[in-house]
Amino acid sequence: MVRHRVIALSGGVGGAKLAWGLTRVLTPDDLLIVANTGDDFEHLGLHISPDIDTLIYTLSGLADLARGWGRDNETWNFMSAMGGLGGETWFQLGDRDLAMHIERTRRLRSGEALSQVTIDLASRVGVRHRILPMCDEPVRTMLETDVGLLAFQDYFVRQQCRPSVQHIEYRGAESAYANKLHEALADPALLAVVLCPSNPFLSIGPILALPAVRRALVACVAPVIAISPIVAGKAIKGPTAQIMRTLGHSATALGVAELYADFLDGFVVDEEDASEATTIQERLQLPCRVADTIMVTPEHKMALADAALRFGRELSALTSTSL
Amino acid sequence: MVRHRVIALSGGVGGAKLAWGLTRVLTPDDLLIVANTGDDFEHLGLHISPDIDTLIYTLSGLADLARGWGRDNETWNFMSAMGGLGGETWFQLGDRDLAMHIERTRRLRSGEALSQVTIDLASRVGVRHRILPMCDEPVRTMLETDVGLLAFQDYFVRQQCRPSVQHIEYRGAESAYANKLHEALADPALLAVVLCPSNPFLSIGPILALPAVRRALVACVAPVIAISPIVAGKAIKGPTAQIMRTLGHSATALGVAELYADFLDGFVVDEEDASEATTIQERLQLPCRVADTIMVTPEHKMALADAALRFGRELSALTSTSL
Repeated sequence: MVRHRVIALSGGVGGAKLAWGLTRVLTPDDLLIVANTGDDFEHLGLHISPDIDTLIYTLSGLADLARGWGRDNETWNFMSAMGGLGGETWFQLGDRDLAMHIERTRRLRSGEALSQVTIDLASRVGVRHRILPMCDEPVRTMLETDVGLLAFQDYFVRQQCRPSVQHIEYRGAESAYANKLHEALADPALLAVVLCPSNPFLSIGPILALPAVRRALVACVAPVIAISPIVAGKAIKGPTAQIMRTLGHSATALGVAELYADFLDGFVVDEEDASEATTIQERLQLPCRVADTIMVTPEHKMALADAALRFGRELSALTSTSL
Repeated sequence: MVRHRVIALSGGVGGAKLAWGLTRVLTPDDLLIVANTGDDFEHLGLHISPDIDTLIYTLSGLADLARGWGRDNETWNFMSAMGGLGGETWFQLGDRDLAMHIERTRRLRSGEALSQVTIDLASRVGVRHRILPMCDEPVRTMLETDVGLLAFQDYFVRQQCRPSVQHIEYRGAESAYANKLHEALADPALLAVVLCPSNPFLSIGPILALPAVRRALVACVAPVIAISPIVAGKAIKGPTAQIMRTLGHSATALGVAELYADFLDGFVVDEEDASEATTIQERLQLPCRVADTIMVTPEHKMALADAALRFGRELSALTSTSL
């Protein structure tokens, strides 16, 4: 097994942006990107892994950056024909994107592990860095809402995050094996763990719900750094702020830091939240950094990746000194 | 159950042309089109029914008549992406066509019968006439060839009919139930059974391999009429002539008539084979008609359908007189 020096935990779009930045400043040997699979679901008989695909498309340069999901240069003739046949069309599947779902499903059914299929499909489209599904077993994010228990995509896509979330369950997480992630987290050669600016409940939450992973993060010798997905009380994208509030948390950078307090060594907040950084440092005794976290350009993504890694190095030096 | 007055047995392209002609001269109540499913196969995890689809696309006007298979206005972005992922691309699946396979597969997996799924999907795209799969159970045409045992699509598409066929097996036919086809064939209200000009071994053969069907054809009171798929010793399309020869039959209209001799009441040969019609009548004591069987235009298709039905009426009148 290759020993990675940096491990990044990522969800979809926002996380993938930073993951892309990390791939620009770290070699394939040095970086392991762990993908949330709590959003995975079976649809039209196909195994769909939205976050893995967003990572693959983003890292390979195939992503449609304007739309924010799926492949660029995409066509929708399958979907249109599906509508004509009376099939389900609430989850948009592009013609090119469909190849990923069909080939993945075929290989999973033939007995291959999701992690192996992911490595192969990613490398086919030119991804050189390693994307590791958080586990090979199915974990399903289920949401108890004011309109009943909803599977993730039902809530997220079909109902467009309108229902109020009261409780979240990561079904299957308790018994999932987490691949070799917990071992990688225990590697003494590890320099840093980076939690990408993804939704703490819907994207990072399922990864942390794997018992071996959370334990390994708490025990991790390398600094664990998170980038706040909340900027000035709002999420860049998606329902993060809304969910944090209805689940009884403060929809602020501080609220996010509190969720990770048991294992976090450093926290990066946006420039807009510079004053909050001081509050977080004081309240949680947690070192903070201020950076431009709204990754619009490739330069932003690389700069944030670089800032997170520099922060990690500083935290390590601090620890060494204090030893 | 609706009692149909004409039953047509059909394979893919050639059969579908005549089936289309029949739908122009018969109401949906009067016509039952039985589709070969011996070519069906599982590919990329999808249940593909090539002959059913050719019938659905042909009857709905969605077929690509120039290409001879699949949908018109088709795109191939799925296939192209599949190639990029290292997936199998030997069986071409268009983006629009894929909706049919995915939706059919989903519904079959949910426990629906192929016949029900076929009715629904066909009606969704505007087919008003009934297309009945020969049976709901899987029957698989397997070919023993000089390069070993091949599944139908492996022989037909991947190896482009190059291997020499030594024996054909219709796996599963012995125990398949034939839906209500044998009952429909026993209906005293039936006016005619038409075997479309399809490959006798690869398209009509699987239907006849259902024991109840062949028995019902032998016992059928209504005249059973076949249109020769062989014209002047050649097939319009596909490997019919070649297969007939390697299986020890004459690759002629006579050779086809001999295969159906135990149940056939009338045989239609092409104008090019007018002299052969006389031979067939004499040798097999089988009434023959000469017609233009090469269906290039819509008018040709309707004219051949009309000729077959007129032939049937004449044969019925003959039988009534001789009684």
